[in-house]
Formats: sequence, structure tokens, C-alpha cells
Amino acid sequence: MYEIMLNLDGDRKKCLYEQIYEYIRQEIRNGKIPCGERLLSTRMLAKQLDVSRSTAQMAYEQLMSEGYIEAVANSGYYVCQIQELYQLDQEPPVSEEKEEETGEYRYDFTPSGIDLDHFPYATWRKLSREVLQSDQRELFGLGDPKGEYPLRKVISTYLYQARGVNAKPAQIVIGAGNDYLQMLLSRMLGTEHRIAMESPGYRHAYDIFQSLGYDCCTVSMDRYGMDVKELRESGADIAYVMPSHQYPMGIVMPVRRRQELLQWAAVKEGRYIIEDDYDSEFRYIGKPIPSLQGSDTCHKVIYIGTFSKSITPSLRISYLVLPAELLDRYEQVGRSFSCTVSRTDQKMLQLFMERGYFERHLNKMRALYRNKHDALLAELRKMQGVKKILGERSGVHLLVQMADKRTEQELADCAKKAGVRVYSLSEYCLDQREHEPMMILGYAKIKEEEIYEAAKILSLCWEKER
Amino acid sequence: MYEIMLNLDGDRKKCLYEQIYEYIRQEIRNGKIPCGERLLSTRMLAKQLDVSRSTAQMAYEQLMSEGYIEAVANSGYYVCQIQELYQLDQEPPVSEEKEEETGEYRYDFTPSGIDLDHFPYATWRKLSREVLQSDQRELFGLGDPKGEYPLRKVISTYLYQARGVNAKPAQIVIGAGNDYLQMLLSRMLGTEHRIAMESPGYRHAYDIFQSLGYDCCTVSMDRYGMDVKELRESGADIAYVMPSHQYPMGIVMPVRRRQELLQWAAVKEGRYIIEDDYDSEFRYIGKPIPSLQGSDTCHKVIYIGTFSKSITPSLRISYLVLPAELLDRYEQVGRSFSCTVSRTDQKMLQLFMERGYFERHLNKMRALYRNKHDALLAELRKMQGVKKILGERSGVHLLVQMADKRTEQELADCAKKAGVRVYSLSEYCLDQREHEPMMILGYAKIKEEEIYEAAKILSLCWEKER
Repeated sequence: MYEIMLNLDGDRKKCLYEQIYEYIRQEIRNGKIPCGERLLSTRMLAKQLDVSRSTAQMAYEQLMSEGYIEAVANSGYYVCQIQELYQLDQEPPVSEEKEEETGEYRYDFTPSGIDLDHFPYATWRKLSREVLQSDQRELFGLGDPKGEYPLRKVISTYLYQARGVNAKPAQIVIGAGNDYLQMLLSRMLGTEHRIAMESPGYRHAYDIFQSLGYDCCTVSMDRYGMDVKELRESGADIAYVMPSHQYPMGIVMPVRRRQELLQWAAVKEGRYIIEDDYDSEFRYIGKPIPSLQGSDTCHKVIYIGTFSKSITPSLRISYLVLPAELLDRYEQVGRSFSCTVSRTDQKMLQLFMERGYFERHLNKMRALYRNKHDALLAELRKMQGVKKILGERSGVHLLVQMADKRTEQELADCAKKAGVRVYSLSEYCLDQREHEPMMILGYAKIKEEEIYEAAKILSLCWEKER
Repeated sequence: MYEIMLNLDGDRKKCLYEQIYEYIRQEIRNGKIPCGERLLSTRMLAKQLDVSRSTAQMAYEQLMSEGYIEAVANSGYYVCQIQELYQLDQEPPVSEEKEEETGEYRYDFTPSGIDLDHFPYATWRKLSREVLQSDQRELFGLGDPKGEYPLRKVISTYLYQARGVNAKPAQIVIGAGNDYLQMLLSRMLGTEHRIAMESPGYRHAYDIFQSLGYDCCTVSMDRYGMDVKELRESGADIAYVMPSHQYPMGIVMPVRRRQELLQWAAVKEGRYIIEDDYDSEFRYIGKPIPSLQGSDTCHKVIYIGTFSKSITPSLRISYLVLPAELLDRYEQVGRSFSCTVSRTDQKMLQLFMERGYFERHLNKMRALYRNKHDALLAELRKMQGVKKILGERSGVHLLVQMADKRTEQELADCAKKAGVRVYSLSEYCLDQREHEPMMILGYAKIKEEEIYEAAKILSLCWEKER
């Protein structure tokens, strides 16, 4: 019979039964109490420790429910057969995360990110207060896997009016970001496909498709966008394009090329076009370019849109517009995945759009980006040794080609020395094909006044070293 | 030379250049203006329509940028070669969504869902106001793919104290719900695995793994949980278990069975155990059962936890705790996927936990559920013809077995006739194995006072028909 040596501490936060439970548990775990050993009866234990019997009983109950001891009728409590418990209390060898390095740049022309100085914080707060009223209780249950109907409805209207997209709410699937939607899409399409992407192109989408197990190939572009002849030869059955504003080249795909692309998809069963319409809201001259999906009569275009550029990436709300023939696949394999966007966020976005805040916000941002666009463009045109400027009129970045023979690396390096971060086109090349050296300057995040200063520094250092 | 017949409407909202652009665009799309046709010069067009030349210019600019017409130097504007444009303006054949049917039940003992009457709406509003202050601007950029460090830190502390989980923040990956995390996990593990699940078990996880392309098999349970001998024979290399509180059987896996399971995983390279710890916060007698992960010295346990039960499913926040050897895989294929939870929601949850709101909320809900648990249990014990009651002490549902030979369907049907919805164990059986007929009664969503009424109705109709 095992004797218990425990001094209970009445002052400790842990109640008495927990102290007893933990002591015995530890004794069993380090093998101090052998398996099969009989324990004191609760009456004896209570007597010996001078606690109430119910306290002893509770300690044994917990030990039983965790399987350390078992009660044998008309006999008592015994330690269960448990092997190799002594080695249980180690820590896994995981190194802690390292601090992120701080930027050594004074100015950063990053092409990603958005201008956050003008996010409608007050409106958003107001909406969140309204949405979080407790009479909105139903919002806190689990919602429609596709996303809430009222939000899909207002997105459908917006897409029709602003983008010429024909999308019934039933075709829209809301998800937490493009990466997730690509993941979801891979469930519907299967991964036994070759995906053709433009190069230079959107590396992140390329990486995601690769991690999803797709065979990704690149197709070169002429001034009209993806080369359809090369696409045919590529053996790909899915084409990923950005017809309204190719990233990063800024090419707008003309109607004829769109027709050729749609034809390519139409002639063969199982072919699809993924239209990534990531920033078409920002066009500074003329009307927005209509979507490719709007001209798709064969239900071959999978449209993917996001609020990351138009509102904020932290919102994590994107959406798919599925063609009719993929809706069945969604019902079969997609519907089981619960929606990844919280219903309160969905409700806030719905109200933000329904009440015209979104349109006003877009107009404000368009004007804001246009000013930055004009400022940067003017500065670059003044700059000596600039041979070509691409990507005007829309989006939030420009491409610059210098007349001299310096490599992108050399241009980036001397800009870095001067404290200005610029990006090279090579970073967006998804294959080893030759391309003319070009620098990419994004203007969404940088302040307008900074554009002037940064551009002056650039022209100085880029001219100095010629 | 093509003549333009357009009556401009000065009152219309659309500005003049848009009217001209749309008219010519439509004429080209309907084939009224043949390809290759030369258009009027902007000067002539302006003259003929009595508009300024810049207006005409803008209309042509838009037509050019969309690829309908092209400018030929020293010659003029020509319609581009475009085939089959006339058939472009159709609608895809997508039927609209049908309204959801309304419930025909007075009382619903659903085992899913939570009690939303006691969600801390006021606190949540307060935190959201605080988080949405514009000086929190950095929150609106794109964040860490794993989820924000401060949130992972507070979760790590919580897991250690409340669940005995050894998780450094670096091991934690935050995602929008379990479905998404299973999806992400499938990227790290690959889908070339057989996953063993307990039956009866959590059907939704089973369905998700199947849609992800896994070969899922079922393994039966004895009173200690998954049968490890059967698991060995199943050929599975991944075991999905709920050791703290098996769903729906409510089994607590004793230490010995846990050891056998860990041993099974340890002896062979590439084997893993997925521990779904979905509702262990709710235990009404004694202390919470420690996690399996806490006893895992071989880094074989993938722990998955959620705030859907403990706070609300609409929050869409769950997390993985990855064992050391899977962290490299995450870096290779997982890190590219941006986090699916908005940073503001992450920040709110972080503050909710750091400031003790979470603990208080858990205590409140535990007391609340315990009262419902006790009420339902008492009613069922009073009920005549009840042979067995399972699943006491924790979770938010109970299982009832009647003494007579009625099928689950019969019991459910006569309950339905009386306006009470109960669930049958068969719905949770993932294979065709025989099982004793049992009814599942969840008590999270139903109000306490309703439990008494609903239970009385049940005993009446279940006794009446014996």
C-alpha cells in the first residue's frame, strides 16, 4: 500500500483537491507509484491529509477521468497500466521567431500596398458599432458558405454597373483573400491541369498555383497581352490573365485579343480563363475597361475580384464569379467549406456599399492616386536618360526604361545607396526569357510630396552614374 | 466613309463623349460598321455632332483603349478586325437562389451552434472602437501569414495554462475556421495519405478531408476511444482524434490509450495525429482534461483549436499548432498563403484575451452550459423508458438510449410530430457498422426554460407510443 507524503498548502491559490490530484498524478508520471499499485481509500486519504472526504473523492475523480487510476468494486483504487510516462514532460525544440529587419530606405516605391492615410476609419467605426448591436444577434451564427446573400447581391449590382460583369448573386462566392479563393477553386477544378500565366506577371498567384500542385507554364506577351498562339502550343487548359490592366506591364487587352482568348477556351471542353480583375477601379483617363467576363458567352471565364486594393488588404475579402458550369462542381465539393469571412465584416462591407460609401471612397482614392500618378509621370518625363515610360493611365505603378545600358540591379543599387527603394521588372519574370531592363515605381503607398523628393534623388543618382 | 447618325441628348446624365463612345461601340458590336472601315476624323465628327473636338477625341481614345478602333498615322481612325462580336450580349443561364425553408419545430436540440444570448456584445463593440482608431493604421496593411505575433503569443500562453499544450508562438498558425486550416494542412502534408477517423465521429471534418482528396477510413471505438489495434491494421498514416471529448460519443481518452496512440505515430516516419480540441473548455466536473499534444514528445501531434465554440462561429478564427518537423513544410508551401483573418479581428481577439475578458466569458458560459446540462440530465433521468445516458460532465450535448426497440427514425419522427427536433446517432456514423440506437440532444442553443418544456413533450410522446 502506497503512502502519500504531501504537505498541503492552505494559502496557495490551487484548491486542496487540485494539490492532491497534481501530487499523485506527478508521482504516477515519474513512476514513483508503480502500475497496479493500490491507493489509499478516500476515507484514509482524507484522514491522513486532514481534508474532507469529498475533497479526496474529487482528486480521485479527476485522476480517474484522465485514466491514471481506476476504481475496482469492493476493493479500491488502483494505478492503471501506463508505460513510458516519465519521458513526457519535455519541450519541443522550436526556435523562437526572429525580429523583422527594419527598412533602411527613406522612400519606398513599392508597387504593392495601398494608401492608408485616407481609409474611412470613422465610417468604418460607425458601421461596426451599428453592426455589433446585439439585436443583430443572428449575425453571430454560422452563415452561408458562399457568403451572405445581401452582400453577394450588392457586389453583383456593383460588378454589373462598374465592370460589365454578368454575375447573379448565386454565382458569387466570397472568401478571405485571393490565395484562399485559388485554393477553393483548386478543389472545384482539380489540380490535374496546366495553368498558363503571362510573364512578366503576378508572381504571388503563380507561387500559390504551384503550392496547390498545378503545373504552371508561362506564355509571353505582345503589346496586346497574352500570346494566344503560344497559349495553344503550351498545352495549358487554364489561362490566367489580367485583361483590364496586366500586372506589372499595365497592358490593356484589346477586344480582338479577348475574342481570340475566349475562342481558345470555347473550342475545347474543360478549358477555362481566370480573369484577375485586381485593380481596374483605378483608371485615370476615360471610362474603366469592361471585364472579359462580360463578353463571355460560353461560360468559360472565372472572374476573381478583391477589395484589397479598393478598400484595404487587411479586410481580407475577395470573391469569385463562377461560370454556370462550375456551379455544380461548387455544390459538390465547394459548398462544404464554411465561408472564411466573418459575418460582421460581411455586413459592414454590405452597408458600406449599399449606402454609397464605397463609391465615394473609390472616387476619392481615384483622384488621390491620379494626382500621385501625374506627379510621378511629370517627374519621370523631366528626368534625363529616360527612354520609355509604361503603365500610364491606370493602376498604381509606372515602369521606366533608361536609355543607357545599366542593368536593373545597378539601377536599383545606386537608388538604394541614395535611400530610395525601386523594384526591377526581373522580380516579376516567371521564366528566364530575355526582357529589356525596366524599373517599377509604385505610388500607392508613398506620399505625394515624397514623390517629388524621391524622384529628384533618383534623377540625381541615376544621372550621376551614367 | 461611314456616316454617323446620332442624336446627342444634352440632358442625359451621361456626358457627351460617353454617348458618342457607346453609340459607335454598339454600331461596331452589331456589325453595322464593318471591320477595316475608316471613321470620320475627330474634326469632322466634332463638326457633324456639333461638339468640341476634345469631346470627339475622348470618345475615340476610349474606343482605342478598348481595342475597337485604331489610329493609323497620317490617315485616320479605322475599325479593328473583330469577329463574332454581335453574339456577345447575352446572360449566362444561372437560376436564382431559392429562399431557405423555415423550421417547423418549436424546440430544437441541435448539437451544433452556441448560446448567443450571452455573447459580450458591449465588450466587443468597445474593443472594435478602440482597434479602429486611425492611429492603429498599421493594422490595415497586409499582415503575417501565420497571424499576428501578439495574438499567437497570447494564444500560446492560454494553451499552455488551460490545455497543457506546449506551443511556441512560432508553431501557431491562425486561420479562418477549421475547414480552411484542414485545407492549408493538406498543402503541408500532401494528400497521398489515408486518414483514420473515429465512427461515430465528426462528419464535417470527414467530408472536408474527402473533398480535399484524402482517402478516409473509419476505425471503431471502445470505451477508451479509437481502437489502436484496428488503426494499425487500417493502413492509415494519419489519425484524427478528439481525445478530450470525442464528438459525438463524449468519450475522454485515458492516458494509456493516449500513450498507445502516440506510440503508433512514433514508430513510423511520416505518421501524424491530428488532435481536434474543439470544445474542451466546457467541462463541468473537475478540471479540464489535458491535451494529447502536451504529452507528445515525438512531435507527431498536430493540434487544431477554435474560438467557434468558446466565443462565436461567426468570428471565423481557428488555429493550428504545428509540430517542429512540420514547420519546415509550412515555410516551404504554407507561408505563401496570406492569413485569412482580418488584422482588426485578430487585434480584437488579442485584447479580448489579454485583458481577461475571454477567461470571464468562458467562466460565464461554463456556468450557463452547466445549468442547461444539469437541467437536461435531470429531466432525462426522470424520463421513463430511458436505458442509458452518455456524454455527461462536458461538452454541450447528451446521448440517450431508450429501453424499447424503437429505431432512431421512429423516435425522431414522433418527437418531430410533437414539434421537438432531436438528432439520431446514425447521422454521425461514417460507416455502415451496427450501433445501438441513440438520440443526441444538444443544449447549447436551446434556452434553459425551454429544456424543461421540450423534455416534458419528449417524455410524453416517447412514452405514449411505447
